[in-house]
Amino acid sequence: MRNFSEETITGAVLARLVDAPSPRARAVSEALIRHLHAFVREVRPTQAEWADGIAFLTCAGQMCSDTRQEFILLSDTLGVSMLVDAINHPLPDGATETTVLGPFYVEGPPELALGEDIAGGKPGEKLLVEGTVRGPDGTPIAGAWIDTWHSDTEGFYDVQLGEGLPALNMRARFRTDAEGRFWFRSVVPSCYPVPHDGPVGDMLKAQGRHPYRPAHVHFMIGAPGCETLVTHVFLDGDPYLDSDVVFGVKDSLVRALSRQEPGTTPGGNTADQACALLRYDFVLAPGRA
Amino acid sequence: MRNFSEETITGAVLARLVDAPSPRARAVSEALIRHLHAFVREVRPTQAEWADGIAFLTCAGQMCSDTRQEFILLSDTLGVSMLVDAINHPLPDGATETTVLGPFYVEGPPELALGEDIAGGKPGEKLLVEGTVRGPDGTPIAGAWIDTWHSDTEGFYDVQLGEGLPALNMRARFRTDAEGRFWFRSVVPSCYPVPHDGPVGDMLKAQGRHPYRPAHVHFMIGAPGCETLVTHVFLDGDPYLDSDVVFGVKDSLVRALSRQEPGTTPGGNTADQACALLRYDFVLAPGRA
Ligand SMILES: [Fe+2]
Ligand SMILES: [Fe+2]
Repeated sequence: MRNFSEETITGAVLARLVDAPSPRARAVSEALIRHLHAFVREVRPTQAEWADGIAFLTCAGQMCSDTRQEFILLSDTLGVSMLVDAINHPLPDGATETTVLGPFYVEGPPELALGEDIAGGKPGEKLLVEGTVRGPDGTPIAGAWIDTWHSDTEGFYDVQLGEGLPALNMRARFRTDAEGRFWFRSVVPSCYPVPHDGPVGDMLKAQGRHPYRPAHVHFMIGAPGCETLVTHVFLDGDPYLDSDVVFGVKDSLVRALSRQEPGTTPGGNTADQACALLRYDFVLAPGRA
Repeated sequence: MRNFSEETITGAVLARLVDAPSPRARAVSEALIRHLHAFVREVRPTQAEWADGIAFLTCAGQMCSDTRQEFILLSDTLGVSMLVDAINHPLPDGATETTVLGPFYVEGPPELALGEDIAGGKPGEKLLVEGTVRGPDGTPIAGAWIDTWHSDTEGFYDVQLGEGLPALNMRARFRTDAEGRFWFRSVVPSCYPVPHDGPVGDMLKAQGRHPYRPAHVHFMIGAPGCETLVTHVFLDGDPYLDSDVVFGVKDSLVRALSRQEPGTTPGGNTADQACALLRYDFVLAPGRA
């Protein structure tokens, strides 16, 4: 129980887990210790590199706030978030595919009436978003909740602009109507760099990577008896669709904007001026017991 | 470059590293991605467990301050610090063995004259610490610097008591005399639990582990042309010598306290009252080019 060497320390740490009260906590701890030690043994960090790693994690933690989540960003940019997503959401049978939550979700966004404009006066090309929410059997779901959020035309989310919670915009909660339909107005979002003024930005630079995500609108959609869907709709034609910094793009989630003239939309809504139209019909997966 | 699955995402993330400007940054990133993904693939976290992991790291970062380093504590308690130490300090040829730095080192401690009392008036059994510092060839080193720090009899370090930097005690910097000798006075430290009111404490509880370290005195010792030594001297007989929560104990670093009566010590110092005596003769390794 003393004098541990490079060869014996991993076994010694694992042996300390014998009294872990929960089998799951023990299994996760064992795996963490084995993989973390294997990483260290492969990389053979100098003491200075180890100290850099400690400083990286500390700095990441200290950048986190109500409106910034550097560890989610780290998970996203290392492909861990999409791996966890893939593990938890095997390709569904007819249900809409999932992608990362990302660091900009705000719980409890303002609930608005269908058709309202969420742009909060921000400039940009007018956008009408419409679609439907259906259940696993294809039946339209009335009263499903839809949280949506997206960046402005400059690529910034409200929470990045120091506007804080009183000034939320480009985000809202809607509820589908009796036919499972939803629609709202906004402006066309832009591709954007993930926040790269912190340790994750330093990491991306050291890895020779750009920090961009292709333009997209986030959706989180829930209804009783269905699994809550976390996904995006990506805008076709974006130059970053094949190099999303968080590896989130799936073909089934890409949609082309169409040109809507004043009048009635394919979804039966009214456009009182010309705008870009984004349509997506979501299908929820059955809830898990 | 889209539609990544559990099987394809790791390769996709690795492929993004082709433009990393530094081969070392690329190699470390590749290893991190491979081992982190392997951990996730083995553990198969639910989305809720993933969120718990993000919250754990965030909380650890936010506990860090000038006087608290939760990520060093995490590294220490997972055996990573001792693994890095082992990698960087293969068993030396005659030189004193190394152990963890720990989270309580303060750079630039107060420089005191040999023989001074560092206890700052804290109660406890009186202690005299003495020894020598020698170079790789056994020659005593004059003017070597010795930073030392230890806990009080209750097991707390000064920085844990909210005393802040103006009230540092039980820590100091000394310099060896012309014969390479050092000596100072203090009180006998106690075994102590590492700080366990944060996420690392939660982890230890989930792992069914106690948070204790056996009683020890920290040393960091440097001299020109020698590698700076980071080590402890552990007190023999401590009940936690075989279950140190940070895996730091090496037999060569354990010393028994002896009973010193008033008079001259083995090291040629003067004890004006009865006290415990701790002796250690350090040997520095040659500096690395
Ligand atoms: Fe986004
Ligand atoms: Fe200590």
